[in-house]
Amino acid sequence: MEAHAESVTFRQCAHLATPDHVTADFCLIPIGTPTASVSQHIANVQKLLAASGIKYSMHSAGTTLEGSWEEVTKVMGQAHTLLHNQGVVRIQTDIRIGSRTDKVQSMEDKVSKVEQILQDDAKKPAEE
Amino acid sequence: MEAHAESVTFRQCAHLATPDHVTADFCLIPIGTPTASVSQHIANVQKLLAASGIKYSMHSAGTTLEGSWEEVTKVMGQAHTLLHNQGVVRIQTDIRIGSRTDKVQSMEDKVSKVEQILQDDAKKPAEE
Amino acid sequence: MEAHAESVTFRQCAHLATPDHVTADFCLIPIGTPTASVSQHIANVQKLLAASGIKYSMHSAGTTLEGSWEEVTKVMGQAHTLLHNQGVVRIQTDIRIGSRTDKVQSMEDKVSKVEQILQDDAKKPAEE
Amino acid sequence: MEAHAESVTFRQCAHLATPDHVTADFCLIPIGTPTASVSQHIANVQKLLAASGIKYSMHSAGTTLEGSWEEVTKVMGQAHTLLHNQGVVRIQTDIRIGSRTDKVQSMEDKVSKVEQILQDDAKKPAEE
Repeated sequence: MEAHAESVTFRQCAHLATPDHVTADFCLIPIGTPTASVSQHIANVQKLLAASGIKYSMHSAGTTLEGSWEEVTKVMGQAHTLLHNQGVVRIQTDIRIGSRTDKVQSMEDKVSKVEQILQDDAKKPAEE
Repeated sequence: MEAHAESVTFRQCAHLATPDHVTADFCLIPIGTPTASVSQHIANVQKLLAASGIKYSMHSAGTTLEGSWEEVTKVMGQAHTLLHNQGVVRIQTDIRIGSRTDKVQSMEDKVSKVEQILQDDAKKPAEE
Repeated sequence: MEAHAESVTFRQCAHLATPDHVTADFCLIPIGTPTASVSQHIANVQKLLAASGIKYSMHSAGTTLEGSWEEVTKVMGQAHTLLHNQGVVRIQTDIRIGSRTDKVQSMEDKVSKVEQILQDDAKKPAEE
Repeated sequence: MEAHAESVTFRQCAHLATPDHVTADFCLIPIGTPTASVSQHIANVQKLLAASGIKYSMHSAGTTLEGSWEEVTKVMGQAHTLLHNQGVVRIQTDIRIGSRTDKVQSMEDKVSKVEQILQDDAKKPAEE
Protein backbone atom coordinates (compact mmCIF):
# COMPACT_ATOMS: atom_id res chain seq x y z
CA MET A 1 0.00 0.00 0.00
CA GLU A 2 2.75 2.36 1.00
CA ALA A 3 4.38 3.12 -2.27
CA HIS A 4 1.24 2.77 -4.32
CA ALA A 5 -0.81 5.10 -2.15
CA GLU A 6 1.93 7.66 -2.56
CA SER A 7 1.84 7.45 -6.33
CA VAL A 8 -0.76 9.99 -7.31
CA THR A 9 -2.10 11.66 -10.39
CA PHE A 10 -1.74 15.40 -10.47
CA ARG A 11 -5.04 16.77 -11.62
CA GLN A 12 -5.27 19.06 -8.64
CA CYS A 13 -1.62 19.96 -8.30
CA ALA A 14 -1.99 23.38 -9.85
CA HIS A 15 -4.21 24.23 -6.91
CA LEU A 16 -2.06 22.79 -4.13
CA ALA A 17 -1.57 25.37 -1.39
CA THR A 18 1.77 26.10 0.25
CA PRO A 19 2.18 25.53 4.02
CA ASP A 20 0.50 27.93 6.47
CA HIS A 21 3.30 27.92 8.99
CA VAL A 22 7.02 27.42 8.47
CA THR A 23 10.28 28.38 10.05
CA ALA A 24 12.97 29.42 7.62
CA ASP A 25 16.57 30.41 8.11
CA PHE A 26 18.47 32.24 5.42
CA CYS A 27 22.00 33.40 4.74
CA LEU A 28 22.23 35.92 1.92
CA ILE A 29 25.53 36.54 0.13
CA PRO A 30 26.21 39.45 -2.22
CA ILE A 31 28.62 38.49 -5.04
CA GLY A 32 30.94 40.82 -6.95
CA THR A 33 30.89 43.56 -4.31
CA PRO A 34 33.91 45.87 -3.98
CA THR A 35 34.85 44.59 -0.51
CA ALA A 36 34.53 41.37 1.45
CA SER A 37 32.42 43.08 4.11
CA VAL A 38 28.72 42.31 3.86
CA SER A 39 27.53 43.92 7.12
CA GLN A 40 25.95 46.98 5.52
CA HIS A 41 23.98 44.76 3.16
CA ILE A 42 22.85 42.54 6.01
CA ALA A 43 21.84 45.60 8.02
CA ASN A 44 19.73 46.81 5.11
CA VAL A 45 18.01 43.44 4.93
CA GLN A 46 17.32 43.64 8.68
CA LYS A 47 15.61 47.00 8.10
CA LEU A 48 13.49 45.43 5.38
CA LEU A 49 12.49 42.62 7.73
CA ALA A 50 11.57 45.13 10.43
CA ALA A 51 9.47 47.09 7.92
CA SER A 52 7.78 43.92 6.67
CA GLY A 53 6.23 43.04 10.00
CA ILE A 54 7.41 39.43 9.80
CA LYS A 55 8.73 37.64 12.89
CA TYR A 56 12.51 37.37 12.58
CA SER A 57 15.66 36.81 14.60
CA MET A 58 19.22 37.45 13.41
CA HIS A 59 22.15 35.29 14.48
CA SER A 60 25.75 35.11 13.35
CA ALA A 61 25.11 32.65 10.51
CA GLY A 62 21.82 33.91 9.16
CA THR A 63 18.37 35.17 10.05
CA THR A 64 15.44 32.99 11.12
CA LEU A 65 11.92 33.82 9.99
CA GLU A 66 8.53 32.50 11.03
CA GLY A 67 5.28 32.84 9.07
CA SER A 68 3.49 31.26 6.16
CA TRP A 69 5.51 29.75 3.30
CA GLU A 70 4.33 32.59 1.08
CA GLU A 71 5.24 35.34 3.55
CA VAL A 72 8.74 34.12 4.34
CA THR A 73 9.70 33.34 0.75
CA LYS A 74 8.30 36.67 -0.45
CA VAL A 75 10.30 38.77 2.00
CA MET A 76 13.51 36.87 1.16
CA GLY A 77 12.89 37.60 -2.52
CA GLN A 78 12.27 41.25 -1.67
CA ALA A 79 15.64 41.26 0.10
CA HIS A 80 17.26 40.22 -3.19
CA THR A 81 15.46 43.02 -5.05
CA LEU A 82 16.36 45.57 -2.37
CA LEU A 83 20.07 44.81 -2.69
CA HIS A 84 19.88 44.62 -6.49
CA ASN A 85 18.31 48.11 -6.41
CA GLN A 86 21.24 49.24 -4.29
CA GLY A 87 23.70 48.04 -6.90
CA VAL A 88 24.51 44.45 -5.97
CA VAL A 89 24.44 42.62 -9.30
CA ARG A 90 24.42 39.06 -8.01
CA ILE A 91 23.09 37.46 -4.85
CA GLN A 92 23.09 33.88 -3.64
CA THR A 93 21.01 32.81 -0.66
CA ASP A 94 20.99 29.58 1.30
CA ILE A 95 17.65 28.76 2.90
CA ARG A 96 16.66 26.06 5.37
CA ILE A 97 12.90 25.84 5.54
CA GLY A 98 10.74 23.41 7.46
CA SER A 99 7.06 22.64 7.89
CA ARG A 100 5.21 20.13 10.02
CA THR A 101 1.61 19.08 10.39
CA ASP A 102 1.71 17.44 13.81
CA LYS A 103 2.03 20.68 15.76
CA VAL A 104 2.87 24.36 15.51
CA GLN A 105 6.36 24.87 16.83
CA SER A 106 7.84 28.34 17.11
CA MET A 107 11.56 29.06 16.78
CA GLU A 108 11.68 29.63 20.56
CA ASP A 109 10.00 26.27 21.25
CA LYS A 110 12.69 24.43 19.32
CA VAL A 111 15.53 25.80 21.42
CA SER A 112 13.72 25.52 24.75
CA LYS A 113 12.81 21.90 24.10
CA VAL A 114 16.44 20.94 23.53
CA GLU A 115 17.52 22.93 26.59
CA GLN A 116 14.88 21.17 28.69
CA ILE A 117 16.20 17.77 27.62
CA LEU A 118 19.75 18.83 28.45
CA GLN A 119 18.64 19.94 31.92
CA ASP A 120 16.63 16.78 32.54
CA ASP A 121 19.50 14.57 31.41
CA ALA A 122 21.90 16.46 33.67
CA LYS A 123 19.74 15.50 36.67
CA LYS A 124 19.80 11.79 35.89
CA PRO A 125 22.19 9.57 37.83
CA ALA A 126 25.39 8.93 35.91
CA GLU A 127 25.24 5.95 33.59
CA GLU A 128 27.89 3.30 33.61
CA MET B 1 28.78 57.61 -0.23
CA GLU B 2 28.92 53.83 -0.21
CA ALA B 3 27.45 52.93 3.11
CA HIS B 4 25.18 55.94 3.36
CA ALA B 5 23.63 55.44 -0.06
CA GLU B 6 22.82 51.90 0.98
CA SER B 7 21.01 53.03 4.10
CA VAL B 8 17.47 53.59 2.95
CA THR B 9 14.10 54.28 4.42
CA PHE B 10 11.46 51.69 3.72
CA ARG B 11 8.37 53.53 2.63
CA GLN B 12 8.09 51.51 -0.51
CA CYS B 13 9.29 48.17 0.78
CA ALA B 14 5.86 46.65 1.04
CA HIS B 15 5.67 46.97 -2.72
CA LEU B 16 9.12 45.62 -3.60
CA ALA B 17 8.85 42.93 -6.25
CA THR B 18 10.69 39.61 -6.09
CA PRO B 19 13.21 38.73 -8.84
CA ASP B 20 11.92 37.82 -12.31
CA HIS B 21 14.49 35.13 -12.98
CA VAL B 22 16.32 32.88 -10.55
CA THR B 23 17.93 29.50 -10.43
CA ALA B 24 17.18 27.48 -7.33
CA ASP B 25 18.39 24.12 -6.15
CA PHE B 26 16.57 22.24 -3.43
CA CYS B 27 17.02 19.12 -1.37
CA LEU B 28 13.86 18.05 0.44
CA ILE B 29 14.02 15.71 3.42
CA PRO B 30 11.03 13.94 4.98
CA ILE B 31 11.42 13.50 8.76
CA GLY B 32 9.84 10.81 10.91
CA THR B 33 9.15 8.44 8.02
CA PRO B 34 9.04 4.68 8.69
CA THR B 35 12.17 3.94 6.66
CA ALA B 36 15.36 5.74 5.68
CA SER B 37 14.48 5.53 2.00
CA VAL B 38 13.21 8.75 0.53
CA SER B 39 13.13 7.76 -3.17
CA GLN B 40 9.36 7.37 -3.43
CA HIS B 41 8.87 10.80 -1.92
CA ILE B 42 11.41 12.33 -4.28
CA ALA B 43 9.72 10.60 -7.22
CA ASN B 44 6.40 12.10 -6.20
CA VAL B 45 7.95 15.55 -6.08
CA GLN B 46 9.39 14.98 -9.57
CA LYS B 47 5.86 14.23 -10.80
CA LEU B 48 4.64 17.46 -9.23
CA LEU B 49 7.42 19.38 -10.98
CA ALA B 50 6.53 17.77 -14.30
CA ALA B 51 2.87 18.67 -13.79
CA SER B 52 3.75 22.25 -12.82
CA GLY B 53 5.37 23.10 -16.12
CA ILE B 54 8.43 24.60 -14.46
CA LYS B 55 11.92 24.00 -15.89
CA TYR B 56 13.71 21.51 -13.64
CA SER B 57 16.59 19.06 -13.57
CA MET B 58 17.18 16.36 -10.96
CA HIS B 59 20.66 15.34 -9.81
CA SER B 60 21.87 13.12 -7.00
CA ALA B 61 21.94 15.87 -4.38
CA GLY B 62 18.80 17.80 -5.24
CA THR B 63 16.75 19.28 -8.05
CA THR B 64 17.51 22.53 -9.85
CA LEU B 65 14.70 24.85 -10.91
CA GLU B 66 14.63 27.89 -13.16
CA GLY B 67 11.89 30.52 -13.27
CA SER B 68 10.73 33.58 -11.38
CA TRP B 69 11.31 33.79 -7.62
CA GLU B 70 7.57 33.40 -7.10
CA GLU B 71 7.24 30.37 -9.38
CA VAL B 72 10.15 28.40 -7.94
CA THR B 73 9.34 29.11 -4.30
CA LYS B 74 5.66 28.30 -4.86
CA VAL B 75 6.30 24.89 -6.39
CA MET B 76 8.74 23.98 -3.61
CA GLY B 77 6.05 24.88 -1.06
CA GLN B 78 3.56 22.79 -3.00
CA ALA B 79 5.99 19.89 -2.75
CA HIS B 80 5.83 20.20 1.04
CA THR B 81 2.02 20.19 0.95
CA LEU B 82 1.94 17.24 -1.43
CA LEU B 83 4.04 15.10 0.90
CA HIS B 84 2.18 16.32 3.98
CA ASN B 85 -1.06 15.23 2.24
CA GLN B 86 0.55 11.83 1.69
CA GLY B 87 1.24 11.46 5.40
CA VAL B 88 4.71 12.93 5.94
CA VAL B 89 4.33 14.98 9.12
CA ARG B 90 7.57 16.93 8.94
CA ILE B 91 9.72 18.14 6.06
CA GLN B 92 12.93 20.13 5.96
CA THR B 93 14.26 21.57 2.72
CA ASP B 94 17.58 23.16 1.92
CA ILE B 95 17.44 25.71 -0.89
CA ARG B 96 20.21 27.51 -2.74
CA ILE B 97 18.71 30.35 -4.73
CA GLY B 98 20.45 32.99 -6.81
CA SER B 99 19.52 36.04 -8.83
CA ARG B 100 21.57 38.47 -10.90
CA THR B 101 20.86 41.66 -12.76
CA ASP B 102 23.83 41.77 -15.12
CA LYS B 103 22.60 38.97 -17.37
CA VAL B 104 20.18 36.08 -17.67
CA GLN B 105 22.11 32.87 -17.10
CA SER B 106 20.41 29.51 -17.46
CA MET B 107 21.43 26.42 -15.48
CA GLU B 108 23.00 25.02 -18.68
CA ASP B 109 25.00 28.22 -19.26
CA LYS B 110 26.62 27.92 -15.84
CA VAL B 111 28.00 24.47 -16.48
CA SER B 112 29.06 25.10 -20.08
CA LYS B 113 30.94 28.24 -19.09
CA VAL B 114 33.03 26.37 -16.53
CA GLU B 115 33.64 23.53 -18.99
CA GLN B 116 34.75 26.05 -21.62
CA ILE B 117 37.29 27.53 -19.22
CA LEU B 118 38.60 24.08 -18.37
CA GLN B 119 39.03 23.28 -22.07
CA ASP B 120 40.70 26.60 -22.80
CA ASP B 121 43.07 26.23 -19.87
CA ALA B 122 43.96 22.72 -20.99
CA LYS B 123 45.17 24.12 -24.32
CA LYS B 124 47.50 26.66 -22.72
CA PRO B 125 51.22 25.88 -22.57
CA ALA B 126 52.25 24.49 -19.20
CA GLU B 127 53.17 27.12 -16.65
CA GLU B 128 56.42 27.02 -14.81
CA MET C 1 14.35 3.15 26.81
CA GLU C 2 14.34 5.35 23.77
CA ALA C 3 15.28 8.72 25.15
CA HIS C 4 17.31 7.36 28.05
CA ALA C 5 19.37 5.05 25.89
CA GLU C 6 20.16 8.00 23.73
CA SER C 7 21.42 10.04 26.67
CA VAL C 8 25.06 9.07 26.93
CA THR C 9 28.15 10.09 28.74
CA PHE C 10 31.03 11.22 26.59
CA ARG C 11 34.11 9.53 27.89
CA GLN C 12 34.93 8.11 24.51
CA CYS C 13 33.78 10.98 22.34
CA ALA C 14 37.24 12.29 21.68
CA HIS C 15 37.87 9.04 19.88
CA LEU C 16 34.66 8.86 17.85
CA ALA C 17 35.46 8.26 14.20
CA THR C 18 33.84 10.15 11.33
CA PRO C 19 31.80 8.23 8.72
CA ASP C 20 33.59 6.01 6.20
CA HIS C 21 31.33 6.81 3.30
CA VAL C 22 29.36 9.97 2.57
CA THR C 23 27.97 11.88 -0.34
CA ALA C 24 28.44 15.62 -0.14
CA ASP C 25 27.33 18.42 -2.40
CA PHE C 26 28.91 21.85 -2.16
CA CYS C 27 28.40 25.28 -3.62
CA LEU C 28 31.35 27.60 -3.04
CA ILE C 29 30.95 31.37 -3.30
CA PRO C 30 33.83 33.86 -3.46
CA ILE C 31 32.96 37.17 -1.74
CA GLY C 32 34.42 40.59 -2.53
CA THR C 33 35.66 39.63 -5.98
CA PRO C 34 35.95 42.34 -8.67
CA THR C 35 33.19 40.87 -10.84
CA ALA C 36 30.04 38.83 -10.36
CA SER C 37 31.42 36.00 -12.48
CA VAL C 38 32.65 33.04 -10.50
CA SER C 39 33.28 30.59 -13.37
CA GLN C 40 37.07 30.88 -13.32
CA HIS C 41 37.11 30.17 -9.60
CA ILE C 42 34.81 27.19 -10.02
CA ALA C 43 37.00 25.90 -12.86
CA ASN C 44 40.03 26.12 -10.61
CA VAL C 45 38.23 24.13 -7.94
CA GLN C 46 37.33 21.50 -10.54
CA LYS C 47 41.02 21.17 -11.38
CA LEU C 48 41.79 20.70 -7.70
CA LEU C 49 39.15 17.98 -7.49
CA ALA C 50 40.59 16.25 -10.55
CA ALA C 51 44.08 16.40 -9.03
CA SER C 52 42.82 15.09 -5.69
CA GLY C 53 41.61 11.78 -7.07
CA ILE C 54 38.25 12.08 -5.31
CA LYS C 55 35.06 11.00 -7.09
CA TYR C 56 33.16 14.14 -8.12
CA SER C 57 30.46 15.40 -10.45
CA MET C 58 29.72 19.03 -11.26
CA HIS C 59 26.21 20.31 -11.92
CA SER C 60 24.80 23.79 -12.32
CA ALA C 61 24.18 24.35 -8.63
CA GLY C 62 27.24 22.75 -7.09
CA THR C 63 29.55 19.77 -7.18
CA THR C 64 28.81 16.38 -5.65
CA LEU C 65 31.57 14.38 -3.97
CA GLU C 66 31.74 10.81 -2.74
CA GLY C 67 34.26 9.41 -0.29
CA SER C 68 34.94 9.28 3.42
CA TRP C 69 33.85 12.20 5.62
CA GLU C 70 37.49 13.09 6.11
CA GLU C 71 38.34 13.01 2.40
CA VAL C 72 35.42 15.10 1.20
CA THR C 73 35.67 17.72 3.93
CA LYS C 74 39.43 17.99 3.46
CA VAL C 75 39.25 18.66 -0.28
CA MET C 76 36.52 21.27 0.22
CA GLY C 77 38.76 23.01 2.75
CA GLN C 78 41.65 22.81 0.30
CA ALA C 79 39.41 24.51 -2.26
CA HIS C 80 39.05 27.43 0.15
CA THR C 81 42.81 27.63 0.61
CA LEU C 82 43.42 27.38 -3.14
CA LEU C 83 41.18 30.37 -3.86
CA HIS C 84 42.54 32.31 -0.88
CA ASN C 85 46.03 31.74 -2.31
CA GLN C 86 44.75 33.13 -5.61
CA GLY C 87 43.61 36.32 -3.94
CA VAL C 88 40.01 35.68 -2.89
CA VAL C 89 39.81 37.12 0.62
CA ARG C 90 36.50 35.61 1.68
CA ILE C 91 34.67 32.43 0.75
CA GLN C 92 31.37 30.99 1.88
CA THR C 93 30.40 27.42 1.06
CA ASP C 94 27.11 25.62 1.45
CA ILE C 95 27.46 21.88 1.98
CA ARG C 96 24.85 19.13 2.05
CA ILE C 97 26.39 15.99 3.45
CA GLY C 98 24.77 12.67 4.20
CA SER C 99 25.74 9.33 5.69
CA ARG C 100 23.83 6.11 6.23
CA THR C 101 24.55 2.80 7.88
CA ASP C 102 21.92 0.61 6.25
CA LYS C 103 23.65 0.44 2.87
CA VAL C 104 26.27 2.04 0.65
CA GLN C 105 24.52 4.19 -1.91
CA SER C 106 26.48 5.97 -4.62
CA MET C 107 25.42 9.25 -6.18
CA GLU C 108 24.41 7.35 -9.33
CA ASP C 109 22.28 4.90 -7.30
CA LYS C 110 20.24 7.73 -5.85
CA VAL C 111 19.20 9.09 -9.22
CA SER C 112 18.60 5.73 -10.85
CA LYS C 113 16.38 4.60 -7.98
CA VAL C 114 14.10 7.62 -8.36
CA GLU C 115 14.03 7.15 -12.14
CA GLN C 116 13.11 3.50 -11.71
CA ILE C 117 10.18 4.44 -9.49
CA LEU C 118 9.01 7.02 -12.03
CA GLN C 119 9.15 4.41 -14.80
CA ASP C 120 7.35 1.78 -12.72
CA ASP C 121 4.64 4.23 -11.71
CA ALA C 122 4.15 5.27 -15.33
CA LYS C 123 3.32 1.65 -16.19
CA LYS C 124 0.63 1.34 -13.55
CA PRO C 125 -3.02 1.64 -14.61
CA ALA C 126 -4.37 5.14 -13.98
CA GLU C 127 -5.71 5.63 -10.48
CA GLU C 128 -9.15 7.04 -9.90
CA MET D 1 46.68 38.39 -15.94
CA GLU D 2 43.58 37.79 -13.91
CA ALA D 3 42.21 34.60 -15.34
CA HIS D 4 45.56 33.23 -16.39
CA ALA D 5 47.16 33.78 -13.00
CA GLU D 6 44.27 31.83 -11.51
CA SER D 7 44.87 28.89 -13.79
CA VAL D 8 47.39 26.85 -11.92
CA THR D 9 49.07 23.50 -12.11
CA PHE D 10 48.45 21.20 -9.19
CA ARG D 11 51.80 19.76 -8.25
CA GLN D 12 51.46 20.92 -4.68
CA CYS D 13 47.73 20.46 -4.26
CA ALA D 14 48.02 17.28 -2.30
CA HIS D 15 49.74 19.34 0.35
CA LEU D 16 47.36 22.30 0.43
CA ALA D 17 46.31 23.02 4.00
CA THR D 18 42.74 23.70 5.06
CA PRO D 19 41.87 27.08 6.65
CA ASP D 20 43.03 27.82 10.21
CA HIS D 21 39.92 29.68 11.25
CA VAL D 22 36.35 29.28 10.04
CA THR D 23 32.85 29.79 11.28
CA ALA D 24 30.45 27.02 10.40
CA ASP D 25 26.76 26.60 10.99
CA PHE D 26 25.12 23.20 10.73
CA CYS D 27 21.64 21.75 10.82
CA LEU D 28 21.62 17.98 11.25
CA ILE D 29 18.57 15.93 10.30
CA PRO D 30 18.00 12.28 11.28
CA ILE D 31 16.06 10.36 8.58
CA GLY D 32 13.86 7.33 9.11
CA THR D 33 13.37 7.90 12.84
CA PRO D 34 10.18 6.64 14.51
CA THR D 35 8.87 10.13 15.27
CA ALA D 36 9.14 13.60 13.77
CA SER D 37 10.75 14.93 16.95
CA VAL D 38 14.50 15.44 16.69
CA SER D 39 15.10 17.26 19.99
CA GLN D 40 16.68 14.32 21.80
CA HIS D 41 19.10 13.80 18.92
CA ILE D 42 19.97 17.48 18.86
CA ALA D 43 20.49 17.43 22.63
CA ASN D 44 22.89 14.52 22.27
CA VAL D 45 24.85 16.44 19.65
CA GLN D 46 25.01 19.42 22.00
CA LYS D 47 26.54 17.15 24.65
CA LEU D 48 29.11 15.98 22.13
CA LEU D 49 29.97 19.58 21.30
CA ALA D 50 30.35 20.41 24.99
CA ALA D 51 32.61 17.39 25.46
CA SER D 52 34.68 18.30 22.40
CA GLY D 53 35.82 21.64 23.76
CA ILE D 54 34.94 23.47 20.54
CA LYS D 55 33.34 26.92 20.64
CA TYR D 56 29.66 26.55 19.73
CA SER D 57 26.32 28.28 19.98
CA MET D 58 22.92 26.70 19.35
CA HIS D 59 20.04 28.62 17.80
CA SER D 60 16.64 27.51 16.54
CA ALA D 61 17.83 26.67 13.02
CA GLY D 62 21.18 25.07 13.73
CA THR D 63 24.37 25.33 15.72
CA THR D 64 27.28 27.65 14.94
CA LEU D 65 30.86 26.50 15.45
CA GLU D 66 34.16 28.35 15.42
CA GLY D 67 37.59 26.79 15.03
CA SER D 68 39.87 25.45 12.35
CA TRP D 69 38.37 23.82 9.25
CA GLU D 70 39.64 20.48 10.48
CA GLU D 71 38.23 20.85 13.99
CA VAL D 72 34.74 21.95 12.96
CA THR D 73 34.33 19.40 10.18
CA LYS D 74 35.65 16.62 12.42
CA VAL D 75 33.18 17.26 15.23
CA MET D 76 30.27 17.44 12.78
CA GLY D 77 31.33 14.06 11.40
CA GLN D 78 31.56 12.70 14.93
CA ALA D 79 27.99 13.90 15.48
CA HIS D 80 26.93 11.69 12.57
CA THR D 81 28.75 8.72 14.05
CA LEU D 82 27.32 9.37 17.51
CA LEU D 83 23.75 9.27 16.21
CA HIS D 84 24.48 6.30 13.95
CA ASN D 85 25.79 4.49 17.06
CA GLN D 86 22.51 5.35 18.78
CA GLY D 87 20.52 3.73 16.00
CA VAL D 88 19.84 6.49 13.48
CA VAL D 89 20.47 4.82 10.13
CA ARG D 90 20.57 7.91 7.96
CA ILE D 91 21.58 11.52 8.59
CA GLN D 92 21.66 14.55 6.34
CA THR D 93 23.39 17.75 7.43
CA ASP D 94 23.37 21.20 5.89
CA ILE D 95 26.52 23.20 6.57
CA ARG D 96 27.34 26.83 5.88
CA ILE D 97 31.06 27.37 6.31
CA GLY D 98 33.09 30.48 5.71
CA SER D 99 36.73 31.53 5.82
CA ARG D 100 38.46 34.84 5.21
CA THR D 101 42.04 35.99 5.04
CA ASP D 102 41.58 39.72 5.62
CA LYS D 103 40.76 39.41 9.31
CA VAL D 104 39.71 37.05 12.07
CA GLN D 105 36.04 37.58 12.74
CA SER D 106 34.29 35.72 15.53
CA MET D 107 30.62 34.77 15.45
CA GLU D 108 29.94 37.52 18.00
CA ASP D 109 31.76 40.12 15.88
CA LYS D 110 29.48 39.43 12.93
CA VAL D 111 26.31 40.16 14.84
CA SER D 112 27.65 43.16 16.74
CA LYS D 113 28.90 44.78 13.55
CA VAL D 114 25.46 44.61 11.94
CA GLU D 115 23.83 45.88 15.13
CA GLN D 116 26.29 48.78 15.24
CA ILE D 117 25.38 49.77 11.69
CA LEU D 118 21.69 49.60 12.53
CA GLN D 119 22.24 51.85 15.55
CA ASP D 120 24.37 54.33 13.60
CA ASP D 121 21.84 54.48 10.77
CA ALA D 122 19.02 55.07 13.24
CA LYS D 123 20.83 58.19 14.48
CA LYS D 124 21.16 59.71 11.01
CA PRO D 125 18.73 62.43 9.96
CA ALA D 126 15.91 61.01 7.86
CA GLU D 127 16.67 60.83 4.17
CA GLU D 128 14.35 62.25 1.60
